[in-house]
Amino acid sequence: MNDPDRAGKEMHALVERLHPICRSMTGDGVRRTLEIIGESIPLDVHEVPTGTQVLDWTVPQEWNIRDAYVKDASGRRVIDFAETPLHVVGYSTPVEATMPLSQLREHLHTLPDQPGLVPYRTGYYAANWGFCLSEDTLRELQDGEYEVRIDATLADGHLTYAEHVVPGELDDEVIIVCHTCHPALANETLAGIAVAVQLAQALAESRPRHTYRFVFAPGTIGSITWLARNRNRVDRIKHGFVLACAGDPGRLTYKRSRRGDTLIDRAAAHVLSTREHELLDFTPYGYDERQFCSPGFNLPVGLLTRSPNEAYPEYHTSADDPDLVTPEAMADTLAAVREIVEVLEGNRTYLNLQPYGEPQLGKRGLYRSPALHKDNKQHQMAILWILNYSDGDHSLLDIAERSAIPFTALVEAARALSEGGLLDEASRQPSQSHGERA
Amino acid sequence: MNDPDRAGKEMHALVERLHPICRSMTGDGVRRTLEIIGESIPLDVHEVPTGTQVLDWTVPQEWNIRDAYVKDASGRRVIDFAETPLHVVGYSTPVEATMPLSQLREHLHTLPDQPGLVPYRTGYYAANWGFCLSEDTLRELQDGEYEVRIDATLADGHLTYAEHVVPGELDDEVIIVCHTCHPALANETLAGIAVAVQLAQALAESRPRHTYRFVFAPGTIGSITWLARNRNRVDRIKHGFVLACAGDPGRLTYKRSRRGDTLIDRAAAHVLSTREHELLDFTPYGYDERQFCSPGFNLPVGLLTRSPNEAYPEYHTSADDPDLVTPEAMADTLAAVREIVEVLEGNRTYLNLQPYGEPQLGKRGLYRSPALHKDNKQHQMAILWILNYSDGDHSLLDIAERSAIPFTALVEAARALSEGGLLDEASRQPSQSHGERA
Amino acid sequence: MNDPDRAGKEMHALVERLHPICRSMTGDGVRRTLEIIGESIPLDVHEVPTGTQVLDWTVPQEWNIRDAYVKDASGRRVIDFAETPLHVVGYSTPVEATMPLSQLREHLHTLPDQPGLVPYRTGYYAANWGFCLSEDTLRELQDGEYEVRIDATLADGHLTYAEHVVPGELDDEVIIVCHTCHPALANETLAGIAVAVQLAQALAESRPRHTYRFVFAPGTIGSITWLARNRNRVDRIKHGFVLACAGDPGRLTYKRSRRGDTLIDRAAAHVLSTREHELLDFTPYGYDERQFCSPGFNLPVGLLTRSPNEAYPEYHTSADDPDLVTPEAMADTLAAVREIVEVLEGNRTYLNLQPYGEPQLGKRGLYRSPALHKDNKQHQMAILWILNYSDGDHSLLDIAERSAIPFTALVEAARALSEGGLLDEASRQPSQSHGERA
Repeated sequence: MNDPDRAGKEMHALVERLHPICRSMTGDGVRRTLEIIGESIPLDVHEVPTGTQVLDWTVPQEWNIRDAYVKDASGRRVIDFAETPLHVVGYSTPVEATMPLSQLREHLHTLPDQPGLVPYRTGYYAANWGFCLSEDTLRELQDGEYEVRIDATLADGHLTYAEHVVPGELDDEVIIVCHTCHPALANETLAGIAVAVQLAQALAESRPRHTYRFVFAPGTIGSITWLARNRNRVDRIKHGFVLACAGDPGRLTYKRSRRGDTLIDRAAAHVLSTREHELLDFTPYGYDERQFCSPGFNLPVGLLTRSPNEAYPEYHTSADDPDLVTPEAMADTLAAVREIVEVLEGNRTYLNLQPYGEPQLGKRGLYRSPALHKDNKQHQMAILWILNYSDGDHSLLDIAERSAIPFTALVEAARALSEGGLLDEASRQPSQSHGERA
Repeated sequence: MNDPDRAGKEMHALVERLHPICRSMTGDGVRRTLEIIGESIPLDVHEVPTGTQVLDWTVPQEWNIRDAYVKDASGRRVIDFAETPLHVVGYSTPVEATMPLSQLREHLHTLPDQPGLVPYRTGYYAANWGFCLSEDTLRELQDGEYEVRIDATLADGHLTYAEHVVPGELDDEVIIVCHTCHPALANETLAGIAVAVQLAQALAESRPRHTYRFVFAPGTIGSITWLARNRNRVDRIKHGFVLACAGDPGRLTYKRSRRGDTLIDRAAAHVLSTREHELLDFTPYGYDERQFCSPGFNLPVGLLTRSPNEAYPEYHTSADDPDLVTPEAMADTLAAVREIVEVLEGNRTYLNLQPYGEPQLGKRGLYRSPALHKDNKQHQMAILWILNYSDGDHSLLDIAERSAIPFTALVEAARALSEGGLLDEASRQPSQSHGERA
Repeated sequence: MNDPDRAGKEMHALVERLHPICRSMTGDGVRRTLEIIGESIPLDVHEVPTGTQVLDWTVPQEWNIRDAYVKDASGRRVIDFAETPLHVVGYSTPVEATMPLSQLREHLHTLPDQPGLVPYRTGYYAANWGFCLSEDTLRELQDGEYEVRIDATLADGHLTYAEHVVPGELDDEVIIVCHTCHPALANETLAGIAVAVQLAQALAESRPRHTYRFVFAPGTIGSITWLARNRNRVDRIKHGFVLACAGDPGRLTYKRSRRGDTLIDRAAAHVLSTREHELLDFTPYGYDERQFCSPGFNLPVGLLTRSPNEAYPEYHTSADDPDLVTPEAMADTLAAVREIVEVLEGNRTYLNLQPYGEPQLGKRGLYRSPALHKDNKQHQMAILWILNYSDGDHSLLDIAERSAIPFTALVEAARALSEGGLLDEASRQPSQSHGERA
């Protein structure tokens, strides 16, 4: 699982396979998506009936679509759902009618500034219908009568979401959330799912300290449903992040949780600091971090993306296809996510057992002059930093932040110092690390 | 009163009318100035006798001047008080003499670097006399005898200042201070007075929450006198600012109070953030904020100017005349001051009544997708920010600072959310807002 | 002592005199160095026997060297200790042998990137021997047999260090530490010693408030030995700094103590702020501040250098000779150090005795308008700043930091205000000044 080439190819293959499926807030497209994910990691699939009260919301009716088209007078399908599910506005009500172009136009959505692309639109709670098409296609339509058909049903049913849990030593949980509700958006929706699947597989090979919970659910209503059904156990969530827009070639972007300085925020900032990246403060607009960071829950859950939502030109258009997503970018996202997990798992606070003056490293085989042994310099510096700051008040992450030494190098140095009898763990409660403020 | 064109013209007319009057620390010029202000807003005029002890100071003698000139041998007035009161050094002792130019020179003040301008000078506590003139005029003076006359009196009398109060729901006061002691300085002295008059008129039309107290007094000794006579009630002053240099075309400048992070400081910074502006930390040099921010009082009183004192070339010269001051600049100062007042009046801390997850805005008619409805985006974002941060710990101003959304847009969104049943006031004590530290 | 030219020349002469001596961690070279320093300031010399346990370390054997060379087949000394002590690796074991160049090479150290320079190397705890030479010299060596001799002894003896104390009014101590262990490194080792000697002489002329303790000791083991022997009295150390690399033409650099915001850190930052300079946060790599700032001691001890260790090309080479060190640079270091001492000595917290409004300065002869008397502006501003911030919570250094007025100008203004009856000392405990946080 540590071969980034292989992982990148596997992730891209998954994105390609999931891409054509028509997903929405509910319905069989979501179920089919979860079936395919379930081939890689076992999923616990939940079906929540229409009408269930979830926090301030109600689970909506289930929407399913079989076919949809607009035919011109010659019988040619000028807009065809079979081509891409983006062509139909999500949650469109069924329609079967013939109408002139002038009337049809009220139901057509284009992107005049990106005339070659089909937009993504939904009308979840609108009781209306519509088609999305490119501005170029629209311009070619001649006046005349058009046959319009949307063969869909909106009826009582279920909202579907799934969980995958990697059990750890502790009940303390790390939650990773991917939305599943968007049709045919490769980067926005599917790349994050693919990265999450690989991360889950990698975690399964170890016995992590934290329990890792992966949630695959429709955006907003899915997280709200999950939170409603898990309200009594949300205090187990010690860290978490939402994964989206995870495969485009842009730089990694981390948006802090509402609390802003929790361990996940600091771990992500430290890991990203060695890459071209961007850090954003919390804003109440984006993905499902909005729900986890609503003031009542206020959980330490951030958002990891590459290009953020609305910040890349292909966002919410037909150009967000598997060509936008690269194996290399997804492998880089996966690597960052795994490094973040390493910090969550490995952060400890130690005590220097010889705190008066520097201990004599040479007699313990721990010293090679950093001035002379350039190749060893980072390791030797890591040793000095850990000895100096291991006063019970500074965790390894604190030291990583101050020293700009990668966390993994500090873990290695701490191991050497522990083996040399110079270091002991100050605390077994790594979640309550120094610097984390509620 | 909301027509900025009309207000700008009214303010400029007031500046022009007040400009020729010879004001000083005391005397009839101040009284005449207050009479004219009193035509627009009712004033409570106070006369404090010479010799009254005020804090560490003593009210000085009153100075009045009727005429002053320097005549050359031909009897021509080469320096004439009737032309501009700047020609006489303030608080000059009376003089009636004939003397050669060489002796007269010791009493003449010019600006060699600005040879066309007459400087402004005073000698309040000096017991001397002098004339101010342009360097150009000085250079034209021929050797010979000059007749010198200053027909002035320095005698026991009064220090004159005035107050105008707009009563509010609360005893909590906002104090606005303008100095009245400078002759013929349009921007430095008079523009602030004109803005204050308009603000007072606008406040009178509403029933404000705070009580607004306008003080028109000579600089330094006037504020010291006011503070001495109101020492037992200064704790009512919850916010305040000094207004000066309020009409030149430069950008707005706010100098923070000594405490630096009080509500007035934050309100001014927020309002100015949408304009080209400058923020300055407190320094103990400037206008009457020095007295209000002396360590014994330490009141939340800042200074609002356009170009600050000493920072524009016309400062304290005859070029600080009504041409330097524009109706547009004064209207902009007035607008900023009114927005600051809106923050002081409107800052509230709310509680989101549905804090677990985002409430469903759609069913309450409060949702229009910010991604699709660009024109509505600020309002929708304001709704999301208020919902997320209304946890009892963040006031609207806190949210304005974090979100960079204008305060007025947040007020409007808070009203919509309150009407939708999603928001309630957390506290009725707006002065003790989060973020204000003593 | 206040003549910087004379002081600069004296310091340079001392550097030149000390430069040829072969110093190491122990031995007669250190003793000879201390003898010469003792000609300028009386020293208390300590001899600590080999084998003494000092914190986590043991005092090592004493190393002394009389002669060392490498002779080629013709009997010519191609490497000669008499030329510079840098030619022999410190703590080399004795050797007397003949060997081919190929075998000798394993004991030769050069700087390939700086082919004309001889490196400085030690092998304190290595039980090996070696020579240092320039890469140019090495390249000229012909194959063949070489006679190798190091006439040195490594045997039980003593570690030697010295103290010089300038007694003050208080037991509170300022510690100044110079390392004495490096042979023939003019800037790295000797310039700091020369500056310290001048500072001690200057302090002796006054009766300082603090007691000043100068420690001349070998790096690392010397400070560890001092700390071990003074462990019960280290709490007397209220401020301190290590002096090294004190004479090159580079800008002054101050590295903060581990605590980072102690009075010495702030004093040094304030003094350096008027010069081209660099401030560095603490890192656990450098000079003896590492020992004083180990977590068990955590003393307020920084490091003052010009170019920091490793940051100038002559560092630890034969080019770090008296030509690198200039009288001007050392005089500048001395001036900065004396200004820092002035802050430590002169920092006080005052109370404005007329805190309500500004006191009337004119009647006390303390006022000259800063707008009119430009030459007096700094003094008048210093008066206003001190009056405004002397509320018992702000020391003169706090005011210096806020106002950017030099500390000495504030001291002068405070004296004028005290004489004018407007100021009194708030506290007689200057070490516990506001802003110093543990």
